[in-house]
Amino acid sequence: MNRRQHEAGQPIPAAEQGGCLADAIRPFHVMAILARARELESSGRSIVHLEIGEPDFPTPEPVAAAATRFLAGGQVRYTPAAGLPELRERIAAYYAERYGVAVAPQRIFLTPGASGALSLALAVALSPGRRVMLADPGYPCYSNFVRLYSGDPHAVPVGAEQDFQLNAALCRMHCGGDVPVAISASPSNPTGTVMRTGVLRELVEWFEAEGGILISDEIYHGLEYGGRAVSALEFGQHTFVVNSFSKYFGMTGWRLGWVVVPEAYAAAVERVAQNIFISAPTLSQYAALAAFSEESRAELERRRRAFEARRDFLWGELVKLGFGVPVAPSGAFYIYADCSAFAEDSAEFAARLLETAGVAVTPGKDFGAQSPERYLRFAYTADIPVLQEAVGRIRRFVTG
Amino acid sequence: MNRRQHEAGQPIPAAEQGGCLADAIRPFHVMAILARARELESSGRSIVHLEIGEPDFPTPEPVAAAATRFLAGGQVRYTPAAGLPELRERIAAYYAERYGVAVAPQRIFLTPGASGALSLALAVALSPGRRVMLADPGYPCYSNFVRLYSGDPHAVPVGAEQDFQLNAALCRMHCGGDVPVAISASPSNPTGTVMRTGVLRELVEWFEAEGGILISDEIYHGLEYGGRAVSALEFGQHTFVVNSFSKYFGMTGWRLGWVVVPEAYAAAVERVAQNIFISAPTLSQYAALAAFSEESRAELERRRRAFEARRDFLWGELVKLGFGVPVAPSGAFYIYADCSAFAEDSAEFAARLLETAGVAVTPGKDFGAQSPERYLRFAYTADIPVLQEAVGRIRRFVTG
Repeated sequence: MNRRQHEAGQPIPAAEQGGCLADAIRPFHVMAILARARELESSGRSIVHLEIGEPDFPTPEPVAAAATRFLAGGQVRYTPAAGLPELRERIAAYYAERYGVAVAPQRIFLTPGASGALSLALAVALSPGRRVMLADPGYPCYSNFVRLYSGDPHAVPVGAEQDFQLNAALCRMHCGGDVPVAISASPSNPTGTVMRTGVLRELVEWFEAEGGILISDEIYHGLEYGGRAVSALEFGQHTFVVNSFSKYFGMTGWRLGWVVVPEAYAAAVERVAQNIFISAPTLSQYAALAAFSEESRAELERRRRAFEARRDFLWGELVKLGFGVPVAPSGAFYIYADCSAFAEDSAEFAARLLETAGVAVTPGKDFGAQSPERYLRFAYTADIPVLQEAVGRIRRFVTG
Repeated sequence: MNRRQHEAGQPIPAAEQGGCLADAIRPFHVMAILARARELESSGRSIVHLEIGEPDFPTPEPVAAAATRFLAGGQVRYTPAAGLPELRERIAAYYAERYGVAVAPQRIFLTPGASGALSLALAVALSPGRRVMLADPGYPCYSNFVRLYSGDPHAVPVGAEQDFQLNAALCRMHCGGDVPVAISASPSNPTGTVMRTGVLRELVEWFEAEGGILISDEIYHGLEYGGRAVSALEFGQHTFVVNSFSKYFGMTGWRLGWVVVPEAYAAAVERVAQNIFISAPTLSQYAALAAFSEESRAELERRRRAFEARRDFLWGELVKLGFGVPVAPSGAFYIYADCSAFAEDSAEFAARLLETAGVAVTPGKDFGAQSPERYLRFAYTADIPVLQEAVGRIRRFVTG
């Protein structure tokens, strides 16, 4: 046979034989920044990290305590594929309390992180080649996920005039000839912008009228600084809503997310979950029950205010320095700042900023093809004294 | 626009518009058995569960203790996408100790369960439409995973004469015109059979010679009752090996697995992991470090011997009752028993066995199309007194 000759016992990886799914997945440019930052640090340089999309706060104490208590029981077995019934109910109650929306627990699926939630939603939303509209700039994993599932990611350029968010008119224009499918994200990574209520309402209603599929990524909900972010579920029950315990609830390493699905999809989603996850991490699910306690929520509100203060500080200072922040960063912990006053290429600027000033940020080109050379993403996942140090360094860098 | 008219505000789910990826995923028949068993139990009936593919032992004490200690530190953050460096090293050492094989830690990726490991392997092994050979009978999630990634699962009928295992000759016959890809599993679910050393060696060498991709599922390694199971890595470094802390290490609910990848794929696999997982559960990774301690290994060996005693008992009793067990079930915790002496349709037999005798088992049709009507899978994930009760009930059922 030997159709595929190998030399010196080295098989030719399929990845090099013109095509595997993973080929479509592009590396993050920030990884090079991170690697270089670590190199500099290990040579003794001080680096301020504003590139990291992970809250710096520890797991809320009541959550860790709940995990410890559960562990003392000794049994950490699979949960049902859809998740612990009591946690599904607790999340349903959260939708009622926070958003005034009735969501049946049967529509809520616990997943290994929001990544798992996206997997479930895409598995029922996609067929091979189906277009998925994505805001550009946006979270880069979306397009990679879509390609992995043999879908066709379609970048929809969005700018300051759209608050860097999708809307119904844009989706009408870009949906192509098939069932319209989109992933929206509010608050957005990398821009920190929140979709206006009317825009979200129109978006949800348009998808519903078209019989399309909208996946609303709400993983930064709770981290909002200009009034409560509105959920897509407030405007209809036919949207997929992805959320997570990672960001607002401060549980990144616990790897626990959830997806709310339209009722008609619940059976299919459960089948997929049984096959591709078996279940979400058990201990994380028991721990997460405590994330809704009064004590936890008080702590999370203190953290939200701390993030808000950091945002106010960093936003103000960046603007004073001459960066452009065209839309208020009202959520998450990101500022997407225009650095074209200082450089023609933000990636080159980011590399020099790291090398010369010891400040790590993420270049715009990790987030799409829509003028990425103008932008840098600053993550305020560090405390104000650290942000002050960063600002001082940046000031000396751009004025020196 | 309104290409997709919806009636009474009900959008037509894409799943009903002729095709989403999830359509290809079939439900497990055992779910109906489970649901009915629960119904019977809640009406007061006693049910013996031999359908469950989860060890009944709790998390080993040193593992739970390590998690508790780690929790006391309070920080449960993301780990690197590939996993904790010290755990990758510990697993590499395990390959050296147990199998006498040198595996670079850089080739080891921690994943959310073995399910996550399969995802990573398939993402680099597959392109749309690529055939993946699977033993029939076999673990049903394989074909569903392959379909979800737009591959083409290809059932290779295997019988007692092949120990219910793939081999090189079968793969040569079934590989089709493309890069040969297969998932093998030893010990096997549902048959509990272990691939002979020579057969595995030939299989590995054939795939290597063809520049194909073999994914060797070794998640039941450690649970073997006729000498150490041999790893595909003992015969070459170009196989993907999937393993897990769930079964032998008794850590199901912790959702932690790993995949060893050929060096040439490590970069692509890391890229995929960054995108689709971010990282495996952090606490589980710290806990798993303790799974290799002497104390844990001694406990795991006691459990292995307990499983062996259960196997000996149940195997012997089933054969005495007139079930056929054509190949020694030498691993995992399953016996795939031929019930054709009692019934023409094992699914119907399983339903009656549950209804009449209160014993839940899994019908063969969950595992493929190769004479499934002859077979039942018995899981000995229950202690000997429970197995005695089950055998008594089955005896009365088949003789009464």
